[in-house]
Amino acid sequence: MRASETVRALQDEQAPLIADIAAELAAQVLGDAGLRIRRMAPLETAQAGELSFLANPKLKSKLATCCASAVIVRADAAEDVVAAGGTALIVADPYRAFAQLTRWWAARVRPAAAPGIHPSAVLGQGVRLGTGVSVGPLSVIEEGACLGDGVVIGPQCQVGRDAEIGAGSRLAARVAFGAECRMGQRGVLHSGAVIGADGFGFAPHQGRWEKIEQLGAVWMGDDVEVGANTCIDRGALEDTVLEDGVKLDNLIQIAHNVRIGAHTAMAGCVGVAGSARIGAHCTFGGAAMILGHLEIGDHVHISAASVVMSSILKPGQYSGVFPIDENGNWEKNAATLRQLHQLRSRLRAVEKKLTP
Amino acid sequence: MRASETVRALQDEQAPLIADIAAELAAQVLGDAGLRIRRMAPLETAQAGELSFLANPKLKSKLATCCASAVIVRADAAEDVVAAGGTALIVADPYRAFAQLTRWWAARVRPAAAPGIHPSAVLGQGVRLGTGVSVGPLSVIEEGACLGDGVVIGPQCQVGRDAEIGAGSRLAARVAFGAECRMGQRGVLHSGAVIGADGFGFAPHQGRWEKIEQLGAVWMGDDVEVGANTCIDRGALEDTVLEDGVKLDNLIQIAHNVRIGAHTAMAGCVGVAGSARIGAHCTFGGAAMILGHLEIGDHVHISAASVVMSSILKPGQYSGVFPIDENGNWEKNAATLRQLHQLRSRLRAVEKKLTP
Amino acid sequence: MRASETVRALQDEQAPLIADIAAELAAQVLGDAGLRIRRMAPLETAQAGELSFLANPKLKSKLATCCASAVIVRADAAEDVVAAGGTALIVADPYRAFAQLTRWWAARVRPAAAPGIHPSAVLGQGVRLGTGVSVGPLSVIEEGACLGDGVVIGPQCQVGRDAEIGAGSRLAARVAFGAECRMGQRGVLHSGAVIGADGFGFAPHQGRWEKIEQLGAVWMGDDVEVGANTCIDRGALEDTVLEDGVKLDNLIQIAHNVRIGAHTAMAGCVGVAGSARIGAHCTFGGAAMILGHLEIGDHVHISAASVVMSSILKPGQYSGVFPIDENGNWEKNAATLRQLHQLRSRLRAVEKKLTP
Repeated sequence: MRASETVRALQDEQAPLIADIAAELAAQVLGDAGLRIRRMAPLETAQAGELSFLANPKLKSKLATCCASAVIVRADAAEDVVAAGGTALIVADPYRAFAQLTRWWAARVRPAAAPGIHPSAVLGQGVRLGTGVSVGPLSVIEEGACLGDGVVIGPQCQVGRDAEIGAGSRLAARVAFGAECRMGQRGVLHSGAVIGADGFGFAPHQGRWEKIEQLGAVWMGDDVEVGANTCIDRGALEDTVLEDGVKLDNLIQIAHNVRIGAHTAMAGCVGVAGSARIGAHCTFGGAAMILGHLEIGDHVHISAASVVMSSILKPGQYSGVFPIDENGNWEKNAATLRQLHQLRSRLRAVEKKLTP
Repeated sequence: MRASETVRALQDEQAPLIADIAAELAAQVLGDAGLRIRRMAPLETAQAGELSFLANPKLKSKLATCCASAVIVRADAAEDVVAAGGTALIVADPYRAFAQLTRWWAARVRPAAAPGIHPSAVLGQGVRLGTGVSVGPLSVIEEGACLGDGVVIGPQCQVGRDAEIGAGSRLAARVAFGAECRMGQRGVLHSGAVIGADGFGFAPHQGRWEKIEQLGAVWMGDDVEVGANTCIDRGALEDTVLEDGVKLDNLIQIAHNVRIGAHTAMAGCVGVAGSARIGAHCTFGGAAMILGHLEIGDHVHISAASVVMSSILKPGQYSGVFPIDENGNWEKNAATLRQLHQLRSRLRAVEKKLTP
Repeated sequence: MRASETVRALQDEQAPLIADIAAELAAQVLGDAGLRIRRMAPLETAQAGELSFLANPKLKSKLATCCASAVIVRADAAEDVVAAGGTALIVADPYRAFAQLTRWWAARVRPAAAPGIHPSAVLGQGVRLGTGVSVGPLSVIEEGACLGDGVVIGPQCQVGRDAEIGAGSRLAARVAFGAECRMGQRGVLHSGAVIGADGFGFAPHQGRWEKIEQLGAVWMGDDVEVGANTCIDRGALEDTVLEDGVKLDNLIQIAHNVRIGAHTAMAGCVGVAGSARIGAHCTFGGAAMILGHLEIGDHVHISAASVVMSSILKPGQYSGVFPIDENGNWEKNAATLRQLHQLRSRLRAVEKKLTP
């Protein structure tokens, strides 16, 4: 097998006309709308027959050497596209139009899940199914679970007892969705996600740990997306809650009793400890860690690999990462850091000496 | 679907009397023992018909406004419960009594796994099953595996060749339990856990990596709990070992040849590199990282997000996290940190000048 | 069950002669080649009937007390083995010979996967199978997927539509290998790995996130190994690429559009953010984090738990970790660190005063 990174291109008759795309995006066209687009591609590598987009106005100069047949741009960059031999699709927000086009494209090139229950799936008693539900091979839907209209369950998933999945939601392959957990409409859970495992609760007693059964569940609103192998634990007494529009990347740990406000997004490897309350419209860079029992307000942005150790209520960007350096330099600086408080005292002593 | 975080309450005839609960906890009752309890709830949100607990004596003042029908407390707080119109359940250790009650409660409200092998499960030759074993739908038990009395295997699990699972242990959904691995009694493995994948071992040769097959396995004692999507690798030549009572949260990585002493607990996202030896009764905050080939003694406590780079034998609490700050402040301090060793030299020079 | 860490030893007639092993390794023998070896073991714990190896010449003194019947060594240590009563197997690179022997040993003691499709597996239309393919119980191979000669698919795996897996590759249990993803020959994917979940892409619009469908896939070269529960996301427009010989440990997150050069290795819990380009022959310690859209050159080595925030093109070892300390010391130093930039200014002021 040879390396090739080209995404499968559409063949001639399947490839949409630029005019079709413009109609879909409600875009104004400058140039030839009659060409066919076989593929979407990044600006740097796009070729004839391909379509790209310019989201960042600072990169406008790249258009001069761009070989794409069509580029989604703001009005002020349209002439540059045409000057380079392409067709401009003019919209107010090119990045959003690009996002919209990926969804339109995906719907054309990916086969829809066939409605119906695969004969190898195992359904418990009292399962309630909406219209057009698809349950993939070797999935298990346990007793009393409820799948809304148009729900798609991929292969090898588990939906636990009395769980509820809202209309139009989709589970990829082998998702575990625990008993009594609920999610809203149009959600997406990627492969390997585990919703509703036990929160980590133990009472210490004579040097041993005694289990606290986790009697809550997980509640997720509409339009929530959860990445591959991400875990959201069930609450101890109440539910762990993700409000509408929360987006979680892969390998994230959400501990029990956490609440995440609407439209907050977290990149991969983030960890949120128990009972933390996180506001709406926050963002968390990869591997950020949030300690337990604290509060983060709305519109707080935490940089990657930063650790939140106390509540942050004021909106803004927060960071805390040891700067990387050549190993020898780091060793010296790290060793000195262990004496930093002493250095401060020494500096103070020096200052005193110099102050008459 | 509307947001609601209330855990399902028991209906009247199912709801236990306070007297039943007191008997279960061997608690002394102050107040009315004849009320029914439909639900357990946190102190702040508990309502009539609900039961809560006060573990931290410092929060005693909360009892004045608590609406719970019953509260588990120490003797010195019982009058406060009654003064607020509730019934006090008096015990020596309220948090432990609460833990005990969650287990009693869970046993009442959750259906027990039905003994027997689901017809869709696939069993290899020579599998040995104790009495009352339950194997869920679409699980695979490979040849020679041994499941002790009362073992519960959830749906879609894999138990590898010649593996052994001790009496009363429970695997949630789609756990992978590798060939020749063994666990003791009363253990719990949560969904997505992978026990006994290959340790990460390669010999470098001419710029390539040559695989070192991992010939050991994983050995876990009694009462071990392993969180969702946590991985415990098999040893290279000997077993990776978790002693009795070890508790691991979700998304933890335990590398090959690691040994973890009895009753040590690790919060989510912790990583332990190969051949580290960790003592008993230790705790690790979330995302703590332990480098390989080092030793951690008994009763060592590592704070969240801290990195252990050399052995720690002395009991105590250890930390190492860059403090988070507003991004602008952090940038300045981080930049200065890269010159810290120089700053120290400059300070020394200044001190010299001032010393006659 | 009692703790025992001994890997299953071979019985007499199965146990190879030292002479057999020497032939396999092309090793020169000093001592008795007629003994049988029942087990491989570390130098410190090896007993009679067992074989070990000495990779690090600095540990040569350990040979004096070693009880192994045979030890793989360099020529200069052979006499020490014999002096301690053992047999020396002399090779140029003992660690590599040990690696080779583990593979030979594993092939002897582990049953090979039986070729054929388990009757409980579910195969879609148009699946193409090479010769000698093994598909385990309850696996799903979706339409159009292609499995090369000798491919082994473990139990409960999912291979997506039109995916391609090269000859001799092996998937452990319940791997998810997404639609249109491709891997080369002789690769290994461990249990719970998720290849080709959606990259984390959303366009912000009026406080909400609009999904960017991920139209690329994942492309992996030959001899790639991916650890348990590791995730490699599909690209947005092009493929996420892992070149030949890349080795990834467990619980690693590789975001969309990342490229990893040949023979680069990453330890557990590493995260690589979107569109990062990583060179060949690099190594990453556990929990290292690489931010997005940056470049790392060939032969760059990143220490454990270090965060790469800008491109690194110069080969070398790089680190950035807050040193761990007793909690009280850390608190003082961390507090002072938040004033470090001020301290620098104060030092500068002192220096000025002292400069006439």
